[in-house]
Amino acid sequence: MLSIPISQQMAIGIDIGGTNTVFGIVDHRGEIAYRGAISTKKHENVDEYIDELYQAIMPALNQFGSDKLVRGIGIGAPNGNYYNGNIEYAPNLPWKGKIPLASLVQQKFNLPSALTNDANAAAVGEMTYGAAKGMKDFIMITLGTGVGSGIVVNGEMVYGHDGFAGELGHTIIIPGGRKHWSTGAEGSLETYASATGVMLTAIELLNKYPDKPSILRHYEENEIDSRLVYDCAIQGDDIARDTYTFTGEILGKALANFVMFSSPEAIILFGGLCKAGSLIFQPAKRVMEENLLPIYKNKVQIIPSELKESDAAILGASALVWELK
Amino acid sequence: MLSIPISQQMAIGIDIGGTNTVFGIVDHRGEIAYRGAISTKKHENVDEYIDELYQAIMPALNQFGSDKLVRGIGIGAPNGNYYNGNIEYAPNLPWKGKIPLASLVQQKFNLPSALTNDANAAAVGEMTYGAAKGMKDFIMITLGTGVGSGIVVNGEMVYGHDGFAGELGHTIIIPGGRKHWSTGAEGSLETYASATGVMLTAIELLNKYPDKPSILRHYEENEIDSRLVYDCAIQGDDIARDTYTFTGEILGKALANFVMFSSPEAIILFGGLCKAGSLIFQPAKRVMEENLLPIYKNKVQIIPSELKESDAAILGASALVWELK
Repeated sequence: MLSIPISQQMAIGIDIGGTNTVFGIVDHRGEIAYRGAISTKKHENVDEYIDELYQAIMPALNQFGSDKLVRGIGIGAPNGNYYNGNIEYAPNLPWKGKIPLASLVQQKFNLPSALTNDANAAAVGEMTYGAAKGMKDFIMITLGTGVGSGIVVNGEMVYGHDGFAGELGHTIIIPGGRKHWSTGAEGSLETYASATGVMLTAIELLNKYPDKPSILRHYEENEIDSRLVYDCAIQGDDIARDTYTFTGEILGKALANFVMFSSPEAIILFGGLCKAGSLIFQPAKRVMEENLLPIYKNKVQIIPSELKESDAAILGASALVWELK
Repeated sequence: MLSIPISQQMAIGIDIGGTNTVFGIVDHRGEIAYRGAISTKKHENVDEYIDELYQAIMPALNQFGSDKLVRGIGIGAPNGNYYNGNIEYAPNLPWKGKIPLASLVQQKFNLPSALTNDANAAAVGEMTYGAAKGMKDFIMITLGTGVGSGIVVNGEMVYGHDGFAGELGHTIIIPGGRKHWSTGAEGSLETYASATGVMLTAIELLNKYPDKPSILRHYEENEIDSRLVYDCAIQGDDIARDTYTFTGEILGKALANFVMFSSPEAIILFGGLCKAGSLIFQPAKRVMEENLLPIYKNKVQIIPSELKESDAAILGASALVWELK
């Protein structure tokens, strides 16, 4: 294997979502040479799912010919456990209980396989191909529908004793604060710094300041989402701007705590909310700095991911392959 | 060096405190074969300090004879930086600015030397000789005058990109809460879960419930300390018990956040407040569990240090030596 130069080696990245599974064949620089997708949710039987995955991927693999070496398969999946390769009790997937997905894939494809959760995969992807290249200590936060995270310390992913480390979206930032729609916890980061959180904050501000004019008042509450709030914010709408400022401030408080834990070189932000750019980065940075001990001040960069959002899931999953021993 | 069996090898551990420096010569099982101390604060000149340290340690070393190998010197110091061996801007030490202490010691003794802050040293000591033996992922929290911490992930200390990781005492647990007497931050863990925090909580509760009888009311406010509160608590005094319950609950909230970061196998508690035993462990455990995501529940032990408090600083510092490459 090692006699084939890295430039001729390829990795398969598979990202399992609740609705669809996307995959790609990726080279060592993060170029996706082939990509495809199958349905996840139509397969209640995981063996049939893996059969379809195999039939979708193999023709593509074969077209690369024998001058390329496929090193292995990396998989990103909700509730994926790196240590045992299981998906464990993922609420949005069709398979219940513990599914030894990495083993099943490895047997079917006869290729070394590794699996982790999607946020950890994103962090490995960023370290391999993106903004964290060369960094040994960083924290990746994904600000999407929810808030995910992947933590790298001493150049290695932090998986914890059980493989489940890095649920920073569920850390409590405002005790007794906003109740989480799913966990029931009060004041977790995800209740504020997610797309859902932005929507809830906008509605709260509209109700709290009924006399403040806002474009958002032309919409029904159920039409308000983080995208609309962003559109209004860049038009200068005060309520919309205040929504992002508030969101960034809560994020900044959380980031300060995370920095005092692992002292990363950088925090890398990824996901839909990052499109708001300085509307969210600037207050996050300000409040993070305010809350840091002096020894940490002005040392930690907050930077956006360098991976294209549409490619990131495949790239992150594929990056696990280069880490295989 | 490697031809001498580990049972014949010794490590020097030096713990630098603001008033005194204690040191010991320690074997691989954590037995302290020799111990001594010199004054720290009388030496404004660091070279003279190191001269005195040398004169105090060398006669002891020589008495061990040539059948023992001294592997090196480990140093625990406030604001100690593992990467460069510097003590940086330690407010309670006589030397200002950045002091390359590990280098100075290494040159003087002609022995490999490593330095870290006291809380990290405590964690390495616990991993080498104590309750964390064999653990690859744990968090050590020292509950003393202040709150210190040392974090181990994948079997390695977390030092962060700059050597300053692990200031969990300064993470904000109650935003807008009690103001820290030194940093000015509001609601950091240290303002509650330290000896000073216990004292402040007791006084707050006495003032908040003026009609509640308490033995503590027989004392002036400036006579109340965590030890007195403990003594009253074990006599069944309600205010004193409530003080420890409240302290444990704040600690539990903080621990939940830490667990969702690095998913440790155990949290190891050390320091004066641990003497309160179940008065503080029990509420900490209860509130930690309440605040954890289901995947973490009932997995993480909270256990007391197994090192004798009087030996722990020397043992922790000496343990750095066995980690030297």
